[in-house]
Amino acid sequence: MPLSQQVNRPLLISMGCPVGIGPELILRLFGAGLPDAVVVGDPEVLSWCAAEIGLPAPLVAWQPGESLRPGAIAVHTPDDARLCRADLQWGRPTAKTGRAMGRYIEESVALLQKGIGGALVTCPITKTALNLGGYHFPGHTEMLAHLCDTEQYAMMMAGARLRVTLVTIHTALAAVPGLVTRAAVAEMIDLTWQALVDDFAIAEPRLAVAGLNPHGGEAGMFGDEEEKVIAPAVAMARAAGRHVQGPLPPDTVFFKASQGHFDAVVCMYHDQGLIPFKLLHFSDGVNVTLGLPIIRTSVDHGTAYDIAGQGVADVASLAAACDMARQIRAHRSRGRVL
Amino acid sequence: MPLSQQVNRPLLISMGCPVGIGPELILRLFGAGLPDAVVVGDPEVLSWCAAEIGLPAPLVAWQPGESLRPGAIAVHTPDDARLCRADLQWGRPTAKTGRAMGRYIEESVALLQKGIGGALVTCPITKTALNLGGYHFPGHTEMLAHLCDTEQYAMMMAGARLRVTLVTIHTALAAVPGLVTRAAVAEMIDLTWQALVDDFAIAEPRLAVAGLNPHGGEAGMFGDEEEKVIAPAVAMARAAGRHVQGPLPPDTVFFKASQGHFDAVVCMYHDQGLIPFKLLHFSDGVNVTLGLPIIRTSVDHGTAYDIAGQGVADVASLAAACDMARQIRAHRSRGRVL
Repeated sequence: MPLSQQVNRPLLISMGCPVGIGPELILRLFGAGLPDAVVVGDPEVLSWCAAEIGLPAPLVAWQPGESLRPGAIAVHTPDDARLCRADLQWGRPTAKTGRAMGRYIEESVALLQKGIGGALVTCPITKTALNLGGYHFPGHTEMLAHLCDTEQYAMMMAGARLRVTLVTIHTALAAVPGLVTRAAVAEMIDLTWQALVDDFAIAEPRLAVAGLNPHGGEAGMFGDEEEKVIAPAVAMARAAGRHVQGPLPPDTVFFKASQGHFDAVVCMYHDQGLIPFKLLHFSDGVNVTLGLPIIRTSVDHGTAYDIAGQGVADVASLAAACDMARQIRAHRSRGRVL
Repeated sequence: MPLSQQVNRPLLISMGCPVGIGPELILRLFGAGLPDAVVVGDPEVLSWCAAEIGLPAPLVAWQPGESLRPGAIAVHTPDDARLCRADLQWGRPTAKTGRAMGRYIEESVALLQKGIGGALVTCPITKTALNLGGYHFPGHTEMLAHLCDTEQYAMMMAGARLRVTLVTIHTALAAVPGLVTRAAVAEMIDLTWQALVDDFAIAEPRLAVAGLNPHGGEAGMFGDEEEKVIAPAVAMARAAGRHVQGPLPPDTVFFKASQGHFDAVVCMYHDQGLIPFKLLHFSDGVNVTLGLPIIRTSVDHGTAYDIAGQGVADVASLAAACDMARQIRAHRSRGRVL
């Protein structure tokens, strides 16, 4: 892709909750300038944050079509979402901050849908702040799926040593076995496989599917979901010529994946995937949304209201999310229209 | 403890399934001699194994009361459990090998109960082989608890970076929430805490208790077992002056424990504990039985019938199990009668 096109398609970094750690992460990570990205957020908030934590803030206002300047942080602000310092208190989201935060997301998606911007990287929000702002979604991912009119989507947690996707996510453990259906497992295998091909440029992915029960049920002694539900979904994928193995014993599959035997592990429930992922990628994990027409990566941590404005939050996850968005943008641009 | 007493209390290493990887692990790890341990097994099996994999086998028969010789592997064999080469085929347990295997365990416990031997280290067995031999137990731990007439016991998986205990073990995931009771959690906290004090010589243990649900239920949004069951059990332990924290979000507690914030994590189900444990200690994990009057450690792997007799099995877990048994023996000998 020629340089001019790349410049026209910067990363968009949505600032997240104005009174969380998003603003300080952006300032600390990109104080020397952002050559290939635009912050969708608010210069008033960023200036206030910079003054609070004693950092320079080389901010410039940016509008679609403008070039990016070396040594500067380009900021694009939806006109109806400008905040005043008087509105702001660290760790205290309000209807105003929630509304502004939702507008950063809407505006980012609108720009991407117009072909302005190559990928979205999101700083953290909370459900509480979203709701205060009048956006009734459980979180970022669902709001993005709605804005993109997408029904089949998924969260992947990705790092250098391990990638996981989840068949069930925020549900009580007692409800998990009932939600692990053949269709749900098959869909997650498909989404994960496609992402490995398109976004991670792995021509022939090797995918592991974890069992649900200890030892993968040990031939039905501790549960039969492996035989009745998971194995048939794996068989469908294998029949389609895909290199998919499973159901594998959950207590060893992540070690094998971390040693390079698999490119990703499809997990049956939140902690099955997140326990090993956070053990290997506590600080530098990235949340990638699969199935959207746009590219979206995110930090894998929250707004950290308890430490917001102190300048101590770890920037590793935002750095990794930006790097991964750039990689996916490069991979997709080789394969198909962004 | 004077040297003479130490010599009178060697480790006892039960050989495990004669046609699994136990014999070769012993030969490969202790070919240069076993100064402080006796193998409870069969010299016929060990000689055969040594010939098969081309190792020396400096075996000497040992009877209770005899000294150990430098450069030799002392082997004690129950008279009614001697095997012939004709009985043996790698990876094929029979009634004879199962019976002999069970006798090694019975004899080891009998010696320990007479004060002969300081600790038991077990090589792997299978339930199938036990049953073939006429021993109807699900595994080692239950058989040992029976032989020691112990009702409150537990398995701890221990390594340098993480120790975990499990409230439920070999049960379908769907059955877990019903089995996580206040009494079961409280008992596991007690057993774990006591082991940290007695066996690991930690004067004031810091114990973490994991939640059951994602994010620890997030204030009841994804399950209420944290509030109704786990928190009250933790409160009881804290009321007794113990440093116990929980229920903590499962996806971050293991990272914190691995960083030294906790001495052990009490887990609600098999894979919650075993996934992070095997990620950190795939080869060198040790299984310690808590609550028994005897000291018992074990390798944390199985009989590996598929590679038995090839000389390729990893000896790290048996080495770590012996080291940990020596450490526990030393800690207990300072505090109370073995």
